[in-house]
Amino acid sequence: MPRLRTLSDLGEGRLIDRIARAAGRLDRSGVVLGIGDDAAILRLRAGEDFVTSTDATVENVHFRWSEQAASSVGRRALVSNLSDLAAMGARPLGFTLALAAPPDLALDRFDGLVRGLVREARSHGCAWVGGNLARSDQTSLAISIFGAVPRGRFLPRKGLRSGDRLFVTGALGAASLARAGWERAGRRIRHVPVPRLEAGRALLGLPGFAACIDISDGLLSDLGHLLEGGALGAALDSERLPLPPGFGARCRELGADPLALALAGGEDYELLFGLRRRAAAGFSAAALTRRLGVAVTEIGEVTSTPGITGVPEVASFLHY
Amino acid sequence: MPRLRTLSDLGEGRLIDRIARAAGRLDRSGVVLGIGDDAAILRLRAGEDFVTSTDATVENVHFRWSEQAASSVGRRALVSNLSDLAAMGARPLGFTLALAAPPDLALDRFDGLVRGLVREARSHGCAWVGGNLARSDQTSLAISIFGAVPRGRFLPRKGLRSGDRLFVTGALGAASLARAGWERAGRRIRHVPVPRLEAGRALLGLPGFAACIDISDGLLSDLGHLLEGGALGAALDSERLPLPPGFGARCRELGADPLALALAGGEDYELLFGLRRRAAAGFSAAALTRRLGVAVTEIGEVTSTPGITGVPEVASFLHY
Repeated sequence: MPRLRTLSDLGEGRLIDRIARAAGRLDRSGVVLGIGDDAAILRLRAGEDFVTSTDATVENVHFRWSEQAASSVGRRALVSNLSDLAAMGARPLGFTLALAAPPDLALDRFDGLVRGLVREARSHGCAWVGGNLARSDQTSLAISIFGAVPRGRFLPRKGLRSGDRLFVTGALGAASLARAGWERAGRRIRHVPVPRLEAGRALLGLPGFAACIDISDGLLSDLGHLLEGGALGAALDSERLPLPPGFGARCRELGADPLALALAGGEDYELLFGLRRRAAAGFSAAALTRRLGVAVTEIGEVTSTPGITGVPEVASFLHY
Repeated sequence: MPRLRTLSDLGEGRLIDRIARAAGRLDRSGVVLGIGDDAAILRLRAGEDFVTSTDATVENVHFRWSEQAASSVGRRALVSNLSDLAAMGARPLGFTLALAAPPDLALDRFDGLVRGLVREARSHGCAWVGGNLARSDQTSLAISIFGAVPRGRFLPRKGLRSGDRLFVTGALGAASLARAGWERAGRRIRHVPVPRLEAGRALLGLPGFAACIDISDGLLSDLGHLLEGGALGAALDSERLPLPPGFGARCRELGADPLALALAGGEDYELLFGLRRRAAAGFSAAALTRRLGVAVTEIGEVTSTPGITGVPEVASFLHY
């Protein structure tokens, strides 16, 4: 049996060549200089500000090689970054990858990560503009993502007031159901969430917009961030939480609590946002869904009393 | 004896608060939105392009807790990124840190890293605009740095021609002498290199400029990158390599080869650049030193024959 090829068989130069070739197939509008120099150069359109965020995906913390394909690890790593752009109302420009990995990492896994990153980037017109390779005992992908917003405009986390109505895009719980399927029944994780970039950009122009965050750590945790520092609370209606089709039955089959997964599961990357009461009353759910290009559901309202009511207490699934 | 306080004693929220407080003391011109939202927002001046680079510093690969203070680890991590901006001729705007660390990392080390990053950032008018904390067995700092160049202008790696003269800023070998001092005599590493940001910006306007790179992996390795793909070589004059004061004596004392450290040691973060022969003839070393604000030494010239001559063969000290 031939020995498995590893990173150390190729060395840094040829690994970077592989990335450069894969990245060369992506859209490069806005990229003045890509992979191969000391740094990358990006150019905004007139009247734009520059948006950046960073997020890391660590082996045995955020993923295990045994539980999902390498390409899915790559895609999900980029999704979590694209989702931060969505939560700002930004359009994506490009990303860099600081990859730390053991020299004996299988080349197939490296190629899978690269393939997943390129696939996800292509879906959103995002260029791969640079990166760094370092030796490490544990594989990790630290991604920085770059985007653009119209000058002086973005979707802030701060801005909620008592009486504002709370909405989420899409459905909650699919990511943690996939994880529960792995943990309780050994089913490989195939779910890849969708970053809500178009919805975020649509929110930028929505009358009565109050505040927005992406749901990376779980609805309750991220709602907590939106309410932070404002002495505000929220009254949710757990009956109205949007769940994926067939969610209840699949949860029961695994012995998982649907509400716990939807409220605290995390990694759904939907947008949670608030609208002023008067503006919210002017939109039907169907009208909001049309404007944002994705299902939108009202789940409750902001209250002047701290604390979140209307949902059961659930344990957090937080990674750190 | 009181138990050592660790990261897990504080938790993510309070660690980020510590960073936000430290970052608040830095220059924030150009920062529209800093730490605390889903992403940061930066604004360029009119007629600028955006420059970005990423570099990682990994425990037991790039540093050991036992061999240098945490603040020095933080400073050096940022220096390697600032140096990439210098090599492009860019002015710094800000950086993000993706920190991966074990939950039982001593809080003192975390605070030291933060202190070092802030100190180095302050020296160069660089803001700290965001980051990410993740759990990991091994500490690593993946930094992305952001800067600006006048639109359409930068210092490329490509551009050397046969006959061009080669120059370096500052002196070579101090970083690897410090490391040799640790490895051979147990002396703690105190050396922190200086990113040549002013020199880089001065090169942007220098007549006859041909190509530039920063020396992160060692002179020979980085010269190799400059010569890449051009079927070019270089004739160096090892007698002319600029060495730190007292370098030979300190190397002899440690049993280290001064030329090997200067040629292949790495982490000096000086700039290596080429000038057209005619332009080089028009500048005295003193005139170049005045224009760049740092000592500049001519070390050889570009040849039409591949390979590097005039220096002994030395082993690479490369990390990966």
